[in-house]
Amino acid sequence: MSERLTVGIVGGSGYAGGEFLRLAMGHPHLDVTQVTSERSAGVPVHMVHPNLRGRTSLKFRKAADLEAVDVLVLALPHGSAAKRIAEFEGKARIIVDLSADFRLRDGEAYRKYYGEDHPAPEQLGRWVYGNPELRRADLRGATRIACAGCFATSVILALYPLIKLGVIEGRDIVATGLVGSSAAGASATEASHHPEREGSLRVYKPVGHRHAAEAAQELPGRFPLHLTAISTPRVRGILTTASVWVPDGYSERDVWGAYREVYGEEPFIRIVKAARGIHRYPDPKLLDGTNFCDIGFEMDVDTGRVVVMSAIDNLVKGTAGHAMQSLNIAQGWEETLGLEFMGLHPA
Amino acid sequence: MSERLTVGIVGGSGYAGGEFLRLAMGHPHLDVTQVTSERSAGVPVHMVHPNLRGRTSLKFRKAADLEAVDVLVLALPHGSAAKRIAEFEGKARIIVDLSADFRLRDGEAYRKYYGEDHPAPEQLGRWVYGNPELRRADLRGATRIACAGCFATSVILALYPLIKLGVIEGRDIVATGLVGSSAAGASATEASHHPEREGSLRVYKPVGHRHAAEAAQELPGRFPLHLTAISTPRVRGILTTASVWVPDGYSERDVWGAYREVYGEEPFIRIVKAARGIHRYPDPKLLDGTNFCDIGFEMDVDTGRVVVMSAIDNLVKGTAGHAMQSLNIAQGWEETLGLEFMGLHPA
Amino acid sequence: MSERLTVGIVGGSGYAGGEFLRLAMGHPHLDVTQVTSERSAGVPVHMVHPNLRGRTSLKFRKAADLEAVDVLVLALPHGSAAKRIAEFEGKARIIVDLSADFRLRDGEAYRKYYGEDHPAPEQLGRWVYGNPELRRADLRGATRIACAGCFATSVILALYPLIKLGVIEGRDIVATGLVGSSAAGASATEASHHPEREGSLRVYKPVGHRHAAEAAQELPGRFPLHLTAISTPRVRGILTTASVWVPDGYSERDVWGAYREVYGEEPFIRIVKAARGIHRYPDPKLLDGTNFCDIGFEMDVDTGRVVVMSAIDNLVKGTAGHAMQSLNIAQGWEETLGLEFMGLHPA
Amino acid sequence: MSERLTVGIVGGSGYAGGEFLRLAMGHPHLDVTQVTSERSAGVPVHMVHPNLRGRTSLKFRKAADLEAVDVLVLALPHGSAAKRIAEFEGKARIIVDLSADFRLRDGEAYRKYYGEDHPAPEQLGRWVYGNPELRRADLRGATRIACAGCFATSVILALYPLIKLGVIEGRDIVATGLVGSSAAGASATEASHHPEREGSLRVYKPVGHRHAAEAAQELPGRFPLHLTAISTPRVRGILTTASVWVPDGYSERDVWGAYREVYGEEPFIRIVKAARGIHRYPDPKLLDGTNFCDIGFEMDVDTGRVVVMSAIDNLVKGTAGHAMQSLNIAQGWEETLGLEFMGLHPA
Repeated sequence: MSERLTVGIVGGSGYAGGEFLRLAMGHPHLDVTQVTSERSAGVPVHMVHPNLRGRTSLKFRKAADLEAVDVLVLALPHGSAAKRIAEFEGKARIIVDLSADFRLRDGEAYRKYYGEDHPAPEQLGRWVYGNPELRRADLRGATRIACAGCFATSVILALYPLIKLGVIEGRDIVATGLVGSSAAGASATEASHHPEREGSLRVYKPVGHRHAAEAAQELPGRFPLHLTAISTPRVRGILTTASVWVPDGYSERDVWGAYREVYGEEPFIRIVKAARGIHRYPDPKLLDGTNFCDIGFEMDVDTGRVVVMSAIDNLVKGTAGHAMQSLNIAQGWEETLGLEFMGLHPA
Repeated sequence: MSERLTVGIVGGSGYAGGEFLRLAMGHPHLDVTQVTSERSAGVPVHMVHPNLRGRTSLKFRKAADLEAVDVLVLALPHGSAAKRIAEFEGKARIIVDLSADFRLRDGEAYRKYYGEDHPAPEQLGRWVYGNPELRRADLRGATRIACAGCFATSVILALYPLIKLGVIEGRDIVATGLVGSSAAGASATEASHHPEREGSLRVYKPVGHRHAAEAAQELPGRFPLHLTAISTPRVRGILTTASVWVPDGYSERDVWGAYREVYGEEPFIRIVKAARGIHRYPDPKLLDGTNFCDIGFEMDVDTGRVVVMSAIDNLVKGTAGHAMQSLNIAQGWEETLGLEFMGLHPA
Repeated sequence: MSERLTVGIVGGSGYAGGEFLRLAMGHPHLDVTQVTSERSAGVPVHMVHPNLRGRTSLKFRKAADLEAVDVLVLALPHGSAAKRIAEFEGKARIIVDLSADFRLRDGEAYRKYYGEDHPAPEQLGRWVYGNPELRRADLRGATRIACAGCFATSVILALYPLIKLGVIEGRDIVATGLVGSSAAGASATEASHHPEREGSLRVYKPVGHRHAAEAAQELPGRFPLHLTAISTPRVRGILTTASVWVPDGYSERDVWGAYREVYGEEPFIRIVKAARGIHRYPDPKLLDGTNFCDIGFEMDVDTGRVVVMSAIDNLVKGTAGHAMQSLNIAQGWEETLGLEFMGLHPA
Repeated sequence: MSERLTVGIVGGSGYAGGEFLRLAMGHPHLDVTQVTSERSAGVPVHMVHPNLRGRTSLKFRKAADLEAVDVLVLALPHGSAAKRIAEFEGKARIIVDLSADFRLRDGEAYRKYYGEDHPAPEQLGRWVYGNPELRRADLRGATRIACAGCFATSVILALYPLIKLGVIEGRDIVATGLVGSSAAGASATEASHHPEREGSLRVYKPVGHRHAAEAAQELPGRFPLHLTAISTPRVRGILTTASVWVPDGYSERDVWGAYREVYGEEPFIRIVKAARGIHRYPDPKLLDGTNFCDIGFEMDVDTGRVVVMSAIDNLVKGTAGHAMQSLNIAQGWEETLGLEFMGLHPA
């Protein structure tokens, strides 16, 4: 008999919670027994997440009715988890938070980027940043996991090898992220209204994206990081292109070497760089539902500019899958459990 | 100096009102001087209709601030125009209503399809149904025009020749309409939320569509009309395919003849039926922004079934353009004024 | 140790073959050892099916280099499998054909719909039509499976209960299928050129669809079946809406009863019919990658018309998944093996 | 009587030629009398450009059958116009070339970016670069106009004010262009196959885009310009975001001032920068069919980075509209003739 942990998902009617639920249902060691939603309490889960029709008979309950579980997954709007963390700590030994509340370890950085004092400053520093590629050792045995932000993940994973190896120390990094509409959540707004959003390319954060704070915290060294975020007509996915400048003499072969050295054993990172064909660079279109981060690059030998590209599904490797992978590591399970889906082609 | 009429648009922050505004700005005899919106009063019109940026400095005002004009265009939610019609009649000699309020001439039909008594029954029968192809003679000199419904228009124009000529008298008609998201209006809802709507094919009215009432009123003869309406991922457009059964011996050549006879002189109806190529039947993709209704057909000689296809832009030939064409006729102007845009390819 | 069969896929660079390959890679009893493609011989499979990157190191080979396997899956253009069937029969004990070549049992029907004499008439009648819901008993132990057509499957599954129970005997059936672009295959054409296809609603087969022949063969009784097929901007998926007329006194509750009675135990059919919500009817958007056929209906009590809706992924329940389910039955395995993916929301 | 010039379009079955044709049909001084296409010779123009159905009865002819006209518009693949320029010069007094052949004035730059010697080096320097905002004076009276490249135009117009005023002299510029599928032309390829392209975000030119050569030639001063080009699922449109760094003390107000000073009188440039709303920055979605270049910006005061955004329709302001505007200037006509379409909302 395999070990099984009970799981409760708080705020499970949103996209991040729904995605964790989907992944957990294919996980051999997890049993989701409770899902909360204030708005949809009493409603069958499959009415909100119709992909789960026939797969679960769970109904949403109010958070007030939450009973103790082994693992609590918090999928609440930013700011909510921190305000109610004491309540949640009474319910479960292991807590995975999908929001931004516990990602930053520094109260001042939090204040700068989120515009207010942290609601639970005593928690700062207690959580492990849920990025397996950077924090695998820290994650082992962790019971407080703060899932990395989606755009942050695409940027961090794109840059980590070159930064870790000191190749681009001190130099400007200019990154542009193309983001799908699901990143803005499950609530309908004027911005998400189909006639307005369909086919639009909308710069929504030209400067000052909050996820720069996570990258600054997690990546070693110093570098000016410039982020621009643009909404695209996709539902899922982030494609990040980052321009960095390598030193004279640093060759494309060296870049290959850096990524192989750092990511060679990673189960969810694939280097995608082909000389020809229509799939020669990363494309989020191929990653819907998967936990992969595909990474590619191309070098302009005249200028030393390297364009690094990364693609993820913002709800999986960007949120729920990253969290699941972190939980697998924390528990000492096979890292890929629940994350086996390879994606579709065409799609 | 050409004649110029002043125009006020009530409810001009919605899609139908905005589209009438766009068309009116290219019309040589119309000057839009007022546009109302309760929600956006005080806001420049181009903030809501960004395509008009640089073209107009109009600001929305409240309906209470409406001053007298020559033509009042009502672009209000269904039910609102009828309730306030006395107020509007005091403002303008000519009223064009884009809602469903004055389309039906029969109070009982209204009650059946709209679920309540008509708010202004004395108005029933005073309005001309704004369908130029069927009501051109009635429209001449009209000062009360009730713009035809968008799905109704696509169905009526598809079927009119065969019905007028008695070819399909008494036989079942089964029509399926594929409708773009703009048909549901400018208000964001869960149904219009981009992650939900993008790529969806959602049957929203399998049976009992209200526009059947308009078709029953406007088309001569008797025939059981069965409508099914499906949302598609397009923003604009309706493609209707209608199956009808012609009598033994009625040939494809006869169908051609019927459509040529009835529509031969129509400026906005094009018969689209080619033996080959990718554009051999009507496709709403080609009609965005235009006032065309493209009509095609194909016959199954084994069964006598004729599939008639019609495509329109729901906001133009389906609403504001149909209204403009009706107004042009009413005023004795060239019928195509303001409606010259040919559409884009590719798009 | 579980039983494992070796599998070869002929014509594996197309979408149907690629999809069978994806499913087989998650199947506990199948080992795909060979994939052929004349055009891509020598190329790694993941260059053509990029979702399989990192999952397989198989390379395409020429069909001439095919070695014996337990199961041969033929994913060739219509007409090719029949011409070469003797060659393939020498390679494997079990053959699954994904084309139309062996679906019809009647040579005359084949000639009528495919415009030529059957290339291997001695094969007619030797194959089991690969539709588990209708042919489960016949499939047990079968070694020749002719996978059902995608549009045929959506129509057949929508109608089967009402036809089997004799409810709509002899009455017209009018079905409209909305089909994604992957149904036309992996070869680029003018019709599939993105600027032309994106956003288009293109009637491609208003009358005379070949799949009517399959429905006529497989469904019991007699009924005039009228099909219209329309291309939509989706990549995957078919939504079929079929209008049928039930006898006086036959109620919505009776329709429910019919579908429950016939499909109550089916692992891949879900009845989707809710009173409210945005997911109250079947929508192919939710089914990408899954083997489900979602079925819903709505009744117009005034006319006795019932609109039955069915949604499938044309490449899974419409092709490769249907084939896999059939193979599972033929081999006596759990019917759902390899077909566990639940689909994504949102997507 | 207004002046009217006859126009011939060579290579008129492509998207650029078709778009010039559409614009010319609404132009009071132009009569398109001939359109050539080798592949479609003899075919009615509306079979290829279905938006012109009912508007023109022109048929394509072979280029060999071209008769003399006042204006010849060359819409040929890159390299073709230069090879046949002597032939074309015998046909018309005024030539407008939509390809890249005559944009560069320097043979070496041509060789570097196009990989071969210029086919007609004696022509270099005889043509005026067709960018009205930069070359209006040169365009007056011009009879050889080399239409600017689409991505080049979006980059040049975004940066011109800051470069002209010397604000960013010598500093890196990092620009990312998001481009629609029509930019790759009317020929179907594997890359344009709908199932592959739909929903994809495909980096197609991470470094080394040819249009950098045009920007280097046309923009004054020296600056390292880094371009990355990405395909998006739109059909039309380019959104460029360019990161530049302004000197200490240079404020957002100064940026405003620069753009107002340089573009204040431009009929087709709109500054789009609002504090709120969903249309607060440029979005190509709003520009389909129009000749506008919308420009916006945002400044990061911490780092001095300014993100300049520009949006155009690649086929209009990026090609045919830019050419028409240039021709209007060359002829001394009103600059906006034929370019009055304001665009659609929603769309």
